[in-house]
Amino acid sequence: MLAESFVRAVTDAVGAAHVRTDTEALSEYGQDALRQSHPPQLVVLPGSTADVAAVARACNEARVPLVVRGAGTGYTGGAVPTHGGVLMSMERMNRILEIDQTNLLAVVQPHVITGDLQRAVEQVGLFYPPDPASLDRCSIGGNVAECAGGPRAFKYGTTKRYVMALEAVLPTGEVIRTGSRAVKSVVGYDVTQLLVGSEGTLAVVTEVTLRLIPRPPACATVLACFPDIGSAVAAVTALIQRRVVPATIELVDAYSLDAVRTHFAEEVAPSGTGAALVVDVDGMQAAVDVEAALVQAACTGAGASAVTLAVSGAERDRLWRARRLLSDALRATGLLKINHDVVVPRGRVPALFDVVQHLRETYRLRIAAFGHAGDGNIHVNLMVDRDDPEERARATVAERELFERVVALDGSISGEHGVGFAKAPYVGIELSADAIALMKRLKTAFDPNGILNPGKMFPD
Amino acid sequence: MLAESFVRAVTDAVGAAHVRTDTEALSEYGQDALRQSHPPQLVVLPGSTADVAAVARACNEARVPLVVRGAGTGYTGGAVPTHGGVLMSMERMNRILEIDQTNLLAVVQPHVITGDLQRAVEQVGLFYPPDPASLDRCSIGGNVAECAGGPRAFKYGTTKRYVMALEAVLPTGEVIRTGSRAVKSVVGYDVTQLLVGSEGTLAVVTEVTLRLIPRPPACATVLACFPDIGSAVAAVTALIQRRVVPATIELVDAYSLDAVRTHFAEEVAPSGTGAALVVDVDGMQAAVDVEAALVQAACTGAGASAVTLAVSGAERDRLWRARRLLSDALRATGLLKINHDVVVPRGRVPALFDVVQHLRETYRLRIAAFGHAGDGNIHVNLMVDRDDPEERARATVAERELFERVVALDGSISGEHGVGFAKAPYVGIELSADAIALMKRLKTAFDPNGILNPGKMFPD
Repeated sequence: MLAESFVRAVTDAVGAAHVRTDTEALSEYGQDALRQSHPPQLVVLPGSTADVAAVARACNEARVPLVVRGAGTGYTGGAVPTHGGVLMSMERMNRILEIDQTNLLAVVQPHVITGDLQRAVEQVGLFYPPDPASLDRCSIGGNVAECAGGPRAFKYGTTKRYVMALEAVLPTGEVIRTGSRAVKSVVGYDVTQLLVGSEGTLAVVTEVTLRLIPRPPACATVLACFPDIGSAVAAVTALIQRRVVPATIELVDAYSLDAVRTHFAEEVAPSGTGAALVVDVDGMQAAVDVEAALVQAACTGAGASAVTLAVSGAERDRLWRARRLLSDALRATGLLKINHDVVVPRGRVPALFDVVQHLRETYRLRIAAFGHAGDGNIHVNLMVDRDDPEERARATVAERELFERVVALDGSISGEHGVGFAKAPYVGIELSADAIALMKRLKTAFDPNGILNPGKMFPD
Repeated sequence: MLAESFVRAVTDAVGAAHVRTDTEALSEYGQDALRQSHPPQLVVLPGSTADVAAVARACNEARVPLVVRGAGTGYTGGAVPTHGGVLMSMERMNRILEIDQTNLLAVVQPHVITGDLQRAVEQVGLFYPPDPASLDRCSIGGNVAECAGGPRAFKYGTTKRYVMALEAVLPTGEVIRTGSRAVKSVVGYDVTQLLVGSEGTLAVVTEVTLRLIPRPPACATVLACFPDIGSAVAAVTALIQRRVVPATIELVDAYSLDAVRTHFAEEVAPSGTGAALVVDVDGMQAAVDVEAALVQAACTGAGASAVTLAVSGAERDRLWRARRLLSDALRATGLLKINHDVVVPRGRVPALFDVVQHLRETYRLRIAAFGHAGDGNIHVNLMVDRDDPEERARATVAERELFERVVALDGSISGEHGVGFAKAPYVGIELSADAIALMKRLKTAFDPNGILNPGKMFPD
């Protein structure tokens, strides 16, 4: 139970209309895309930085957990209030404050939807590259908290490369500004980048200044179907050797293609296809023509059985269709989709697929693997019968083995989704005890009373 | 005086051949490019990470200041042991350990010279973009400590965009690894980026994993001469509006051109030139041709009196000559060159030049201003008679006003050179008291006894 005086302080700060304690709200705001619900005791909807600071101060004084939530599209429970307390949804702070065409930047409140920002800047010939799959539902604040990626990260990098400056509220209530509207600043420590990807454990981001780039004037897509994963990965290596930098290099395995075929009754690749690559190249038209030809040649040379080029928007959409339908098709199997976004150095993607095959055989599991081959960031989806506890148990053993083998390949247990509470028990596989101890000291430097998003990121 | 037992511990750790206490060494290692000498009490030259850890532990236990030095090319005294103690030069740790063409990365020890790394990777068709002016003398470790920039930062970003992973020794002796050889990892806090630009105050970097990109196959240079700064900056704005992304956009003012003309007796621009732009475009040949034409058109449209295009290496070098000779020409004036690397949002470069003109007039100072116009990062050089204390006093007042006005323009007092001790008194102009307090807590989380590079980055 929250103390009455505490609830009054929060209500006085943000207004009664913006505080909810009804069961429906507590349930709705208690989960994210992981679908494990942990209801908070109170939901608060701040409208300003001052509101956020007042709530933080109240929580800090009363030692009440404070969990910040973006759009609830996370996969690792990062915004789920596992320890109860106050859930702060940023949904009212949803305005694009400025698009500055001279300085190539945008200033936004945290709850601007990523896709909305992209469309707004593209209308003036600019470009915000990060493109997480949930871009029409997720928020910039959530993207900053998780350091969201997406297919275009191969060429353009992830969210962190675009965050120039932040306004943030410390758990103790101080409002700080980090970074600069100038593209370079080396004064003081880089607190901006420390906050990006910190999963809401260090501060509450209330304003984001994002770097924009000119919108690439032209784009082309190549779809290539291969007999097996090995030849598809060989094509990626050949691309890199030819020094081509596609915007995206997406890889889809046979299990995933089958799921699309089965669910949508649609032939997305010739039969016998063991793996497919979807490659976008973008930039000046003249360069796109040259690079698209290099991509086609690399795929053919690596043994692709069918290589298709599309330059119009509609044709490009058709080639992307299988990739875009994937998540829906996998969900439509009715199985539980346990999605792990592991990442290895690019050259070790074949070894990662060997690991996946080993897990399929050893643990008798259905596994769909696809994702960002250029980054070595492969989404390994364990497809498990919800009602088969024995299969779920096998999956749990398999996922630990997956993480251990990925780290042994010099990789990371998460390239995009973060740790949250779902992966917290596994962080010690990747980070040393000394590194974790240092990170916990950094946490304390921000949050001396540990009120902000407790139970996340670190093993207990 | 260092305790005998301490000196013995350090000597036992690294070997007597790698410890120096002679006056010559103490003097030589006590300064950087700022030329203010503060001799240490002992110079140590570690050969391995284990050596570094042993020295750190000894210093931490004895509470002896430990200052790490790269190649001594810094402008703000960041590697100068103002508080005495141990100066650790990384010069023996100077090997390129690996250039990985599949994963597009290099692993290097900290004292690899930046230009040497660039040449090594360019030989295999790869590219390491950061290009500080001192690139043939400065080290990667120093570049990481300061987050070095350079002309190509406009298109390619500064050092931080290329640091994937670090091995570092904490002041308390633990060896940690941060980041990943995979291009994405979101597990734990981004300690990698926190260390980049931390000026040797948080940890000692002992190994750096750097992201490489394909070497741009073609490049062209445009030199454009303008009647005044205003029209040159208008050309930059026009370029941005045409969505061109040159690799570099360098701006040189009339005072600087005069210095080159006077010192080298060489006509680098037509008489009457008030400002010059040197613009590089690079990428695929077809794109370079298009972009070079757009650059020329933008310059002509903005009122350039002479626009020259060069595509061959020799011709390009000729156009760059004035820019490259600048620092030597300014030093050859015999005046003290007080170089401030202030930075403002790109659109405010004209306002920054107004500030420079105001300072010239108000304080009767000779000021040469040039630099990276695309980044808004202008090197403002106060040219002062060493033997005129009254002029030096005027310069000191002027530099504080410069910093205040730059911050009022949403800029930063340093875009490249860092704070060190030279700019430490001015940090409070840019950072709030709350931000500085947070940064000091971060410092303590790394360095509980404050032994690492004391007296730097923060006002006392």
